Amino acid sequence: MRDVSIIGIGQTSVGEHWDRSLRHLAYDALAAAMRDAKLERADALYVGNMLSGEISGQAHLGSLIADFAGLRGMEAIKVEAACASAAAAFRQAYIGVASGLQDIVIALGVEKMTDDVGSRLTAGLASAADADYEVIHGITFVALNALIMQRYLYEYNVTREDFAGFAINAHANGAGNPNAMFQRPISKKAFMKSGMVADPIGLLDASPMADGAAAVVLCPTDQAREFTDNAIRVKGSAVATDSLSIHDRRDPLWLQAAQDSAQRAYRQAEVTPEDIDFFELHDAFTIMAALSLEASGFAERGQGTRLACDGEITLEGKIPITTRGGLKARGHPVGATGLYQIVEATQQLRDEAGDNQIANARLGMTQNIGGSGATIVTHIFERVS
Amino acid sequence: MRDVSIIGIGQTSVGEHWDRSLRHLAYDALAAAMRDAKLERADALYVGNMLSGEISGQAHLGSLIADFAGLRGMEAIKVEAACASAAAAFRQAYIGVASGLQDIVIALGVEKMTDDVGSRLTAGLASAADADYEVIHGITFVALNALIMQRYLYEYNVTREDFAGFAINAHANGAGNPNAMFQRPISKKAFMKSGMVADPIGLLDASPMADGAAAVVLCPTDQAREFTDNAIRVKGSAVATDSLSIHDRRDPLWLQAAQDSAQRAYRQAEVTPEDIDFFELHDAFTIMAALSLEASGFAERGQGTRLACDGEITLEGKIPITTRGGLKARGHPVGATGLYQIVEATQQLRDEAGDNQIANARLGMTQNIGGSGATIVTHIFERVS
Repeated sequence: MRDVSIIGIGQTSVGEHWDRSLRHLAYDALAAAMRDAKLERADALYVGNMLSGEISGQAHLGSLIADFAGLRGMEAIKVEAACASAAAAFRQAYIGVASGLQDIVIALGVEKMTDDVGSRLTAGLASAADADYEVIHGITFVALNALIMQRYLYEYNVTREDFAGFAINAHANGAGNPNAMFQRPISKKAFMKSGMVADPIGLLDASPMADGAAAVVLCPTDQAREFTDNAIRVKGSAVATDSLSIHDRRDPLWLQAAQDSAQRAYRQAEVTPEDIDFFELHDAFTIMAALSLEASGFAERGQGTRLACDGEITLEGKIPITTRGGLKARGHPVGATGLYQIVEATQQLRDEAGDNQIANARLGMTQNIGGSGATIVTHIFERVS
Repeated sequence: MRDVSIIGIGQTSVGEHWDRSLRHLAYDALAAAMRDAKLERADALYVGNMLSGEISGQAHLGSLIADFAGLRGMEAIKVEAACASAAAAFRQAYIGVASGLQDIVIALGVEKMTDDVGSRLTAGLASAADADYEVIHGITFVALNALIMQRYLYEYNVTREDFAGFAINAHANGAGNPNAMFQRPISKKAFMKSGMVADPIGLLDASPMADGAAAVVLCPTDQAREFTDNAIRVKGSAVATDSLSIHDRRDPLWLQAAQDSAQRAYRQAEVTPEDIDFFELHDAFTIMAALSLEASGFAERGQGTRLACDGEITLEGKIPITTRGGLKARGHPVGATGLYQIVEATQQLRDEAGDNQIANARLGMTQNIGGSGATIVTHIFERVS
């Protein structure tokens, strides 16, 4: 197997792109990543997307986007794992290069959610959960997460207020990210006063639906110097799964797939959580941030919110998270989110994170969660130069 | 890169499975393939599927099926390339094993179309075409193929009757396949009298919608002997793409992605079309069989129907096709079809094709087409023992 590095990144701003279609958003991110890598061709394209069939009546995005980007004929395929689709696409791109079969590979995540913000979107998001065992009872995706959060409050004797730090930190960091959907800090008072979406999840616990696309270019590490002086090495890569249904899990408050994929990534990278300089986690809801920190080894069981309360998740803290706004403030275009995380981790490791830069960042981790935890993809990246 | 072989195959019968859900069909095929390989675990699962989001309200099939099959936790992902989804999943499984990252890998294709046979299914199938450039005008997927066939009749001065041989051969072979949806031969008279679906495509030019699942298990060739004495080697593997829109292609009567992927597979396998003993092609409509034969090098441009008229595509002919019924008679559960083709090719190369057995088959080719030709996946398989 070959060692693999990122040599180019690209993204669109995250928001309501009424003037850009799905293929245009994809093109914008892909072209930016190609320009960044100073490339005009590639061997393969892996597209992460969740909802284009339901929302835009468009399947077959691999060929569609390859063609629209002027790369007609190339190998191109779509990968789907609900909200973890983009990191799953990155994983396939990584395997393609590592195998020796493909040299220059693009991983792209794209989602166009605002073409339908009515019932099809709510139903589409619920398709990440188990249609026959969960959704058939009428539950929405946010309500499923609310059940988990309610249980967390009960088991660990914490309050809604203990989750405020996750949202406040995300919005504070979003203020420094010109591509974020929300670029204004929020106060604890605003958090506590925000309307309830699905008790106990309030509006400021939840990430916003959005349009967006992000892309990276990968190549073998030993060829990376031909293209760039600041290649970022993929040091760990892992996917793990769990049951879609929450009731089927041994413990609804433990993200087993986060633990499994993080442990595999740590082993491959030969590092421990203490070595990680920052962690782009999947804060679709604040409860997911807490559970991700616990299962990935950054906090004891039931102690995830402590890190938020103690300020350990800020840019200057022990384990900075959502350093460019996270899903909460950057926005959550579901099938693109995993690649936004990877683009942002690359920016940190290249010293290109502007106001959000973490000093001396050498090792960054990303974690993309599909459904309420049924697919979890963890990657570890390293600055080489 | 490692050499890769198939060590297990499984399939459900193709048809209207009112008593089995999507996950049950997937399980049936997966478990059969695992039994065939005498395995109880695997490193990864790649699921091909096109329509579960639209038809069954269920995304996230990788984790869902891994969990339902008793393999919770394993790496699992869904791959989609319209009707070429299953061969695309096989391609990813092949890359996973070739890379050295995964040893025992399952590729599975599953489709449950009969849960909705109304407008959502017609719209879902049309999502293989270009939503903004083609489908917005109201055209269905069969109508798109009818435009191509109409042009073929005009350009090459052939008649509808010249396509009869494709359907007659498929149904004759389906009669020998206990898993085929249609197991009765048809006459030329029946073909000519069958009702028109979209002029000039008649009912017996078109493959039927169906439910079904098919799976294979792959491992490195040098480990295959631990599991089986009749491993089948993957000798060539390639994906190529084209524009989704037919009007955007240089020549609407030429499947450029079939030519590109077939040529790459021939080069990798170091063979020519003359070496191929049989060809499981993608006869979603008879016109696609003709175009596939031409672009893959078995017939000159405009001469594809000649092979059907001259009997060269039958089990005893120069290039047997659809040897177990093809899409026309075995049935076309869209996101599963590519793996039915690969399972059937494996049966031929193992001498397990029963009444349909081709004598001394050593090299078989499969070709799975997404949309009207925008993703085409070609594989070449070899009997080793």
